[in-house]
Amino acid sequence: MTTDLKRVGLIGGGVIGAGWAARFLLNGIDVAVYDPDPDLARKVQAVLGNARRAWTSLIPEKPKQEGRLIIAGSIAEAVTGADFVQESLPERLDLKQCILAEADALLPPEVVIGSSTSGLLPSEMQQGMRHPERLVVGHPFNPVYLLPLVEVCGGAKTSDAAKAAATEIYTAIGMRPLQVRKEIDGFIADRLLEALWREALWLVNDGVASTEEIDDAIRYGAGLRWSFMGTFLIYRLAGGEDGMRHFLAQFGPALKLPWTKLVAPELTDELVDKVSDFSDQQAAGVDLRTLEALRDDCLVSVMQGLASHDYGAGKVVSDFRAALAARAPEPAGELLHLHQGTVPAEWIDYNGHMTEFRYAQVLSDATDAVLARIGADAAYVASGRSYYTVETHTRLLAEMKEGEGFAVSTQVLSFDGKRLRLFHTVTRRSDGAEVATGEQMLLHVDAAQAKAAPADAAVLDKLGAVTALHGDLPHPEAAGRAVGQKR
Amino acid sequence: MTTDLKRVGLIGGGVIGAGWAARFLLNGIDVAVYDPDPDLARKVQAVLGNARRAWTSLIPEKPKQEGRLIIAGSIAEAVTGADFVQESLPERLDLKQCILAEADALLPPEVVIGSSTSGLLPSEMQQGMRHPERLVVGHPFNPVYLLPLVEVCGGAKTSDAAKAAATEIYTAIGMRPLQVRKEIDGFIADRLLEALWREALWLVNDGVASTEEIDDAIRYGAGLRWSFMGTFLIYRLAGGEDGMRHFLAQFGPALKLPWTKLVAPELTDELVDKVSDFSDQQAAGVDLRTLEALRDDCLVSVMQGLASHDYGAGKVVSDFRAALAARAPEPAGELLHLHQGTVPAEWIDYNGHMTEFRYAQVLSDATDAVLARIGADAAYVASGRSYYTVETHTRLLAEMKEGEGFAVSTQVLSFDGKRLRLFHTVTRRSDGAEVATGEQMLLHVDAAQAKAAPADAAVLDKLGAVTALHGDLPHPEAAGRAVGQKR
Repeated sequence: MTTDLKRVGLIGGGVIGAGWAARFLLNGIDVAVYDPDPDLARKVQAVLGNARRAWTSLIPEKPKQEGRLIIAGSIAEAVTGADFVQESLPERLDLKQCILAEADALLPPEVVIGSSTSGLLPSEMQQGMRHPERLVVGHPFNPVYLLPLVEVCGGAKTSDAAKAAATEIYTAIGMRPLQVRKEIDGFIADRLLEALWREALWLVNDGVASTEEIDDAIRYGAGLRWSFMGTFLIYRLAGGEDGMRHFLAQFGPALKLPWTKLVAPELTDELVDKVSDFSDQQAAGVDLRTLEALRDDCLVSVMQGLASHDYGAGKVVSDFRAALAARAPEPAGELLHLHQGTVPAEWIDYNGHMTEFRYAQVLSDATDAVLARIGADAAYVASGRSYYTVETHTRLLAEMKEGEGFAVSTQVLSFDGKRLRLFHTVTRRSDGAEVATGEQMLLHVDAAQAKAAPADAAVLDKLGAVTALHGDLPHPEAAGRAVGQKR
Repeated sequence: MTTDLKRVGLIGGGVIGAGWAARFLLNGIDVAVYDPDPDLARKVQAVLGNARRAWTSLIPEKPKQEGRLIIAGSIAEAVTGADFVQESLPERLDLKQCILAEADALLPPEVVIGSSTSGLLPSEMQQGMRHPERLVVGHPFNPVYLLPLVEVCGGAKTSDAAKAAATEIYTAIGMRPLQVRKEIDGFIADRLLEALWREALWLVNDGVASTEEIDDAIRYGAGLRWSFMGTFLIYRLAGGEDGMRHFLAQFGPALKLPWTKLVAPELTDELVDKVSDFSDQQAAGVDLRTLEALRDDCLVSVMQGLASHDYGAGKVVSDFRAALAARAPEPAGELLHLHQGTVPAEWIDYNGHMTEFRYAQVLSDATDAVLARIGADAAYVASGRSYYTVETHTRLLAEMKEGEGFAVSTQVLSFDGKRLRLFHTVTRRSDGAEVATGEQMLLHVDAAQAKAAPADAAVLDKLGAVTALHGDLPHPEAAGRAVGQKR
């Protein structure tokens, strides 16, 4: 059903609502958003800009066509015709009850409503609804367009079908739903965050540390681990060869030590001043947009790093990318057009443009795309056969800057049973300029024997079909050249 | 003084003590470690093996010569002749007081003693010491050889000189000391961790969630952010354009909500069983070594990702690498030997060996090393001039596997005012096999005018000096070849 999701209605367009808008839009889904804020359109566009920038690096397989953004003039306009509705209003129970009842009355009963509440109980929120069974908490984390977690929690009257539908929708847009099996204030994540946050406020209140020192105590230590393993698995490892039971025996007594205040501090004017002043010092005049970009760049790099181990949030990303790739339509045309992307921030070198080996990466990814197209894919490699690149000639013709799009076209220059010779041309999307060419010689190998061997007949057949027209194409002028050779 | 650190004495060789051993040894510093555990040597070697593996990717500039590991038979043997001592005993005040007094009596007064305590007060620990002024808390985090954070805290009698010396030592071995200005139980980090941990135990105790669900609530959400920004900066961003003051106004009321238990649960046998059983399920039979390797691989990738933005722990790593590189002796010999490294896990592709574009990265890094050597360095680039690679020819001759070392030798084939033609040969360290060759044509450019221009005279002079002997070297057989050309 979720692949049929055409239009989503969003109620509330703050940081969270705008984040939802960006995530749905980048998935190619239309979004109608309502918020009384007169500055809504600008704010949603700003978040969407951040999201586009991040997805360019993280999810290159995203649909080419973004969804359409509709700034709705009323709740009725936002929800009418929606296949799914997500509410992201301020954390006031009375407000949420009132607006949810209004949306409920406007929608056919099969449309599920998700609520972004950080910790209010769905059983209470659904009280004024005619169809309370459709209300599901789907609690996301900022920035919604990047962090995969969404806590899914039903109230007393929520149907299993609604929870399943919300879970399917969130998964389809690249998130990682976590089922909260027991309805509880703050669900799971915010209870943990709130405990840490209250203690952090005490440390500032009591003059123990500045906000920056507290942040440093996290980000140079435990925070690095928390990006892929939670507290329990980390402590299991700290228990050494005897595991969690040993850890509890060793550190259990610390539960009796006065290591936390275990109460929330009073948020006095003085404490508010203290925290705000420290926070200003910490930001050191760097503006919000710059900090947001830094946050997103770091999140992208962290998730890309974890994707290389197919673990944690990295696995969510790689699974999502694979699902999107499987959905992409087959390419057509004379040359092969199988690879495209956008230059992420971390591809830029000290010269301010794409560093040399990233050109090689683009060309290598294009070769992988050709191999996948002719059936020399992961399963083929797992069967012990593969194409290895043995020689390349690359011309770097133009600079590429961060955020610029590129597309690769490929001509198969020649192939036989064992050899495959490709010629890639990389062009810049904005102006069509040639930025690089790459000639690649591949050899088909039997990996077990580590020697050249003929490719599978099915692969050779596909290669023949794919390249049927390539023989008629002109030989590229730059093919067969050596480094420094005169034109 | 720290660069003079020749030998460190370690008291206690558990997970933390062994982690300290690994960090000092990989910095080329001798380590004598004492622990009554008869299995000490094996356990330290296991941690050292993990650390070597991680540093190979993360800190390729590490000294070639590791420090010598001495398994000491007594505290006296561990500390005698040490320039610095670090204590990592179990968290019992009486035990620490007793052993610290013993070490204190054996050491000349100028030797600083660091304590790894997670939260005991230095004023209490130093009570039985003749020279209490030398005791400094240096609280690290597991794995000590990877996480940069170390909390530095003095007691009532600790001297400023001792705190400064410990800070300098920890910095020199690649860590990020955090000064704890007020002595408090649990310091800063463990107070935050303990608050979250106590709440997590309640969630298991009350049947709200399993250990895996709680871990997922962190690692797919807030934990990703915490790897580079702490709670305060993240919440400042969540406050949007109005910052921290707005955030406090918006979420301050939540401090009154029942979102944490705010007490520590009783660690009953039943709770211990529950947590341990959940933890076993979560580990799903995967053994400790495998999980440790996964943890370290993820930490390395996360820190590498952050290093690409020179932020958080990534900046600690890049600063440390730069400091180590500055210390490295000048290379000598006919060919240039300016770049070497080891294949990290994330360079491996679906074929199980180093992916194609990483060969290009190795060659490109070798070119950068040549440029740095002739003075075309970051400052030169900042002045608006640079060498751009315009054409490459690469031969991929052998597979490289994870953890294999490589070294690059470079011949300058020719150069003039604007052009520089290099020929790199990459060899595998273990057997000297050629794994790749790369011919690269570089053009010197005036970046502002985006066109070729002669290099600085100083650069050309250095190029001449560096390549004085290269004219007499034979021309490599593979130079000047095109793709697929017969030998």
